Amino acid sequence: MLIVMRHGATEEQIKNVAEFIENKGFAAHVSNGELHTVIGAVGGKVIDPRDIELLDGVKEVIKISSSYKLCSRMFQPNDTVLEVNGIKFGGEHAGVIAGPCTIESMEQMEAVASKLSSYGVKILRGGAFKPRTSPYAFQGLGEEGLKIIRKVADKYSMAVTSEVMEISQIPLFEKYVDIFQVGARNMQNFNLLKELGHVQKPVMIKRGLSATIEEWLMSAEYVMSGGNREVILCERGIRTFERATRNTLDLCAIPVVKKLSHLPIIIDPSHGTGLRDKVAPMSKAAVAAGTDGLMIEVHDCPECALCDGAQSLYPEQFNELYKTLKLIAPIIGKEIR
Amino acid sequence: MLIVMRHGATEEQIKNVAEFIENKGFAAHVSNGELHTVIGAVGGKVIDPRDIELLDGVKEVIKISSSYKLCSRMFQPNDTVLEVNGIKFGGEHAGVIAGPCTIESMEQMEAVASKLSSYGVKILRGGAFKPRTSPYAFQGLGEEGLKIIRKVADKYSMAVTSEVMEISQIPLFEKYVDIFQVGARNMQNFNLLKELGHVQKPVMIKRGLSATIEEWLMSAEYVMSGGNREVILCERGIRTFERATRNTLDLCAIPVVKKLSHLPIIIDPSHGTGLRDKVAPMSKAAVAAGTDGLMIEVHDCPECALCDGAQSLYPEQFNELYKTLKLIAPIIGKEIR
Amino acid sequence: MLIVMRHGATEEQIKNVAEFIENKGFAAHVSNGELHTVIGAVGGKVIDPRDIELLDGVKEVIKISSSYKLCSRMFQPNDTVLEVNGIKFGGEHAGVIAGPCTIESMEQMEAVASKLSSYGVKILRGGAFKPRTSPYAFQGLGEEGLKIIRKVADKYSMAVTSEVMEISQIPLFEKYVDIFQVGARNMQNFNLLKELGHVQKPVMIKRGLSATIEEWLMSAEYVMSGGNREVILCERGIRTFERATRNTLDLCAIPVVKKLSHLPIIIDPSHGTGLRDKVAPMSKAAVAAGTDGLMIEVHDCPECALCDGAQSLYPEQFNELYKTLKLIAPIIGKEIR
Amino acid sequence: MLIVMRHGATEEQIKNVAEFIENKGFAAHVSNGELHTVIGAVGGKVIDPRDIELLDGVKEVIKISSSYKLCSRMFQPNDTVLEVNGIKFGGEHAGVIAGPCTIESMEQMEAVASKLSSYGVKILRGGAFKPRTSPYAFQGLGEEGLKIIRKVADKYSMAVTSEVMEISQIPLFEKYVDIFQVGARNMQNFNLLKELGHVQKPVMIKRGLSATIEEWLMSAEYVMSGGNREVILCERGIRTFERATRNTLDLCAIPVVKKLSHLPIIIDPSHGTGLRDKVAPMSKAAVAAGTDGLMIEVHDCPECALCDGAQSLYPEQFNELYKTLKLIAPIIGKEIR
Repeated sequence: MLIVMRHGATEEQIKNVAEFIENKGFAAHVSNGELHTVIGAVGGKVIDPRDIELLDGVKEVIKISSSYKLCSRMFQPNDTVLEVNGIKFGGEHAGVIAGPCTIESMEQMEAVASKLSSYGVKILRGGAFKPRTSPYAFQGLGEEGLKIIRKVADKYSMAVTSEVMEISQIPLFEKYVDIFQVGARNMQNFNLLKELGHVQKPVMIKRGLSATIEEWLMSAEYVMSGGNREVILCERGIRTFERATRNTLDLCAIPVVKKLSHLPIIIDPSHGTGLRDKVAPMSKAAVAAGTDGLMIEVHDCPECALCDGAQSLYPEQFNELYKTLKLIAPIIGKEIR
Repeated sequence: MLIVMRHGATEEQIKNVAEFIENKGFAAHVSNGELHTVIGAVGGKVIDPRDIELLDGVKEVIKISSSYKLCSRMFQPNDTVLEVNGIKFGGEHAGVIAGPCTIESMEQMEAVASKLSSYGVKILRGGAFKPRTSPYAFQGLGEEGLKIIRKVADKYSMAVTSEVMEISQIPLFEKYVDIFQVGARNMQNFNLLKELGHVQKPVMIKRGLSATIEEWLMSAEYVMSGGNREVILCERGIRTFERATRNTLDLCAIPVVKKLSHLPIIIDPSHGTGLRDKVAPMSKAAVAAGTDGLMIEVHDCPECALCDGAQSLYPEQFNELYKTLKLIAPIIGKEIR
Repeated sequence: MLIVMRHGATEEQIKNVAEFIENKGFAAHVSNGELHTVIGAVGGKVIDPRDIELLDGVKEVIKISSSYKLCSRMFQPNDTVLEVNGIKFGGEHAGVIAGPCTIESMEQMEAVASKLSSYGVKILRGGAFKPRTSPYAFQGLGEEGLKIIRKVADKYSMAVTSEVMEISQIPLFEKYVDIFQVGARNMQNFNLLKELGHVQKPVMIKRGLSATIEEWLMSAEYVMSGGNREVILCERGIRTFERATRNTLDLCAIPVVKKLSHLPIIIDPSHGTGLRDKVAPMSKAAVAAGTDGLMIEVHDCPECALCDGAQSLYPEQFNELYKTLKLIAPIIGKEIR
Repeated sequence: MLIVMRHGATEEQIKNVAEFIENKGFAAHVSNGELHTVIGAVGGKVIDPRDIELLDGVKEVIKISSSYKLCSRMFQPNDTVLEVNGIKFGGEHAGVIAGPCTIESMEQMEAVASKLSSYGVKILRGGAFKPRTSPYAFQGLGEEGLKIIRKVADKYSMAVTSEVMEISQIPLFEKYVDIFQVGARNMQNFNLLKELGHVQKPVMIKRGLSATIEEWLMSAEYVMSGGNREVILCERGIRTFERATRNTLDLCAIPVVKKLSHLPIIIDPSHGTGLRDKVAPMSKAAVAAGTDGLMIEVHDCPECALCDGAQSLYPEQFNELYKTLKLIAPIIGKEIR
């Protein structure tokens, strides 16, 4: 942390600031510049820079080190590569996850999974507990849904991912899923993240609708600081003023995250755009930008889906897209599966 | 819901759309306009408009009724007035809540509460469980904190509000607080909201950082649909591109909410601005705009606060502000206490 | 500017950076911290910090001084108070400007101005050239409009403000208006701003829809650097994701601007909310927050207005609001006229 | 336009609304639904929906037709393909424009153009008049710069594009450039757009920092309504709360624009990200998403560039990227040159 004193700050003010940060456990290094005296604060714990900004004579306080450690490239320079059911996320690998927004019935999951499996997809998605904006909307099948997706996935040798909404649901999910998914609205449910730090399976953290990339990495840090190093980041669109799409998919998050962190980042073009005909172009774009994976909504009958059918692909559409992605990935030195 | 067909849509397409919505439980009313046929969908349950937009021949789908019911003016035309420890929120009344961001110790709470009480404040705030962006930051005293705030509040005949972060914490909070606070990051923690629908005490819901007012009202609806009609809405700033303030305090939410809903709305200028010297002007502005209350952070020693000291007022600053607010409120026909 | 070197940066890298900035005209002051070497760059001209960030070994570049000078409190600590037709903006004074969005006819201006004048309003607004999003919308009366507003204003001893859209219109406006208005969409029309730096009358600069406060002050700097020190800043709402209002009126811009700059800041609640019933609460809020003025749209027949009638007050509504504002202002130590 | 009356609106209210819109030149078609009476307004001119919303008994007013006509797919279903110096934009063609941010000297343009030309680039960019946020930053070489870029381009048989900032500059630009560029800050400089409607050369309109896609298309409409049908849209990033990148590049604008409009859309990844190492991934992503072109900043010595060097590629970097783009484009059925 650097504390820039105002031009003309008195000796007394400089001394006060130095003492203040020393009392907070930092070492203070004073350098006298021509215009400004700058105090470097080294060591110490987390401190709110605004507390120092309010001291007399202080012009500005500048954070140098990012607050995330375990997920940063400083801590681990090489890409983390996670493997689930033979599918790899990270490094030179991109993995594909597909399935319906919501688990509706055994028949529906069977219909989708049989097709996805025949295309080569190895990880099945489907929501059992749905976070719906309205209390009057369909809230998911609950445990019954988890049983269905597990049974169908086992039949086709697929892995399972589904969204966990509550600490109390973790033991239940342990039995049924291979990847714990944390929804955008729970990205800063810190208690949940802490608990997922003790889980022995990968955790996928969706970016919140208005979360900065730094905050998102801090959420990964919550999980990692609990001991679980298997974290996947999932960009799914941020909220902006643009109304033509449901959200604005921030594909530049791919190179940004890959520079700051060793963790894999995947893209959810279905929620990221909210519209079926935008899913294919954004999936291709994500692969070309170097994504470590994609999570795509597929439904065998989108027009009868109970939730988000409008952003789900038909199985055949998905398959055609999947083939195209396999052509694009090698061009940028990646393999997608 | 109104479904606008494209200019030139065929009879068959119109019939298909009508059947589609009838299958979803709606009655279809077809009106042939000069340019566009419009189909009104009446009754029925929640449906995703995008599902209809994807049908052939459909130009646009328009939602007419808002999805919230219990919190709307349609359901209850008169202002809800909530009373806690003699302080009223709503109608011609505005209430003040004050206290530190975080409960740090008995001495700290005693120091703040004794002063606030002497100024006439009747509701004390203080966080026991703190949702911190970083896992390495101070996370609150937990139950110990709740015991402290309750003891101090009782001594000065004050009521207590504190943020509940988890369903599992509800029984604990029942013992200590008079108003359950739901933080901005939990505004769409729907499971938590549902559980709070069964609580017998008022629930204050802070607006999420990127929540629209409609979504915020839907969160209130979650609580109300569980049976608890005592909901207070609290605006605390939204995230924008502006960097001079921590958040952008949306004071226009006051008249907007008051037009749509009968629920009281209060303002948190401390989080809404993040800077002590902005708290007073924004508090005065909120009262002039007709707020039903204010929640203001006050600390007896902001520079030694463990959290958010930079946005906390000194007790004397608060008292001076409090007096000014009492002069402004009557001008717009309100009483503030 | 401070250049923070990475932990472990080599002597060579530090030397290279120092040389680079010296070549750009800065003096380099190197301080060795425990973790990071910091290089202070003093003097020199405008430089893009990203150019330095790309040099080997550089961790971060931090701008210390703001780029605006003439409009900052550093340059002039005391409030600038501008006076137009006896109305003062700034310091302990707040001025009111009122009138229709657009000049439609002599009859309309006469009807509005006679009423406003009888209430005591001394500055009349009205658009002659209208920047409309659609090329098919009414574009204003042009010079004819300017003639009308001038004639009516003279009759009632009022001053005139109107929006100038083009450098080529400046000589025309010189003849008719007392305050040049720069619209939100032209806030970064730098050529126009430069030309207005040579004008002998006050210039009111509206904040752009997505402009930061710092950029807005830079636009004021453009005018001031041309020699014209009479600049008024006008906040009129920023664009956010919220859809209940046309824009989000950022009232916290009032205390933020007043801390950074000596220039007067006024509020336009009509464009800032876009809805008539939100104009009064936001006007009161602005005064309570310490605004140096208000610009309010008033039309004698809003439902027949050619433009923005929905956000215009009826004359009687305005007068009632005006009276209320005069009660609020003294409470915060201001006089409003 | 559809006007939805409130449940329980009186016959009188319905009649009033019908008369109101008939007076504005619309035909009114009343349909009585079970819950709501809906009035269709057909024909008529541009009207502000809020004017109707304020009438008694009106619940909501819904715009059906978009206000842009000439640039919509309704008006022209097939892709517009523009050709400049043998390079095509639109349909199955994507074109590449490259060059430095700013024209600095003959030597610099010569160095860049000779390399770009050897790679096969046919259109050279370079700014002569620079819209800089600060009045103290380098403002461009002006006409001298235009002469330089024209001379160098002619030598290498290249076309030229440069940003025009002012109506008065149009005759000058006519002499030197092949594509008129309108900067993001001028996207709603309607007078300039109107004048460019009379020019005989293509006009490239950059999206404003906070412009919706609809507004951007309206700006294209301004040019087209003046008679000039050769418009290219250029996405260059929108302003969001994210701070890791200069702007958020909205690649989903590609499929959105291509659905609504027949005009070509190109991407500027240099301004869209602001960082050199993000330019390549975003360029590849744009091509995979179906862009009709790219405009990329290239400088032979980015670290000595007078402006935006941090986002400029080295010529060799550009060439490597260019080759990769030529591999991606055919996969999605496009040719890039």
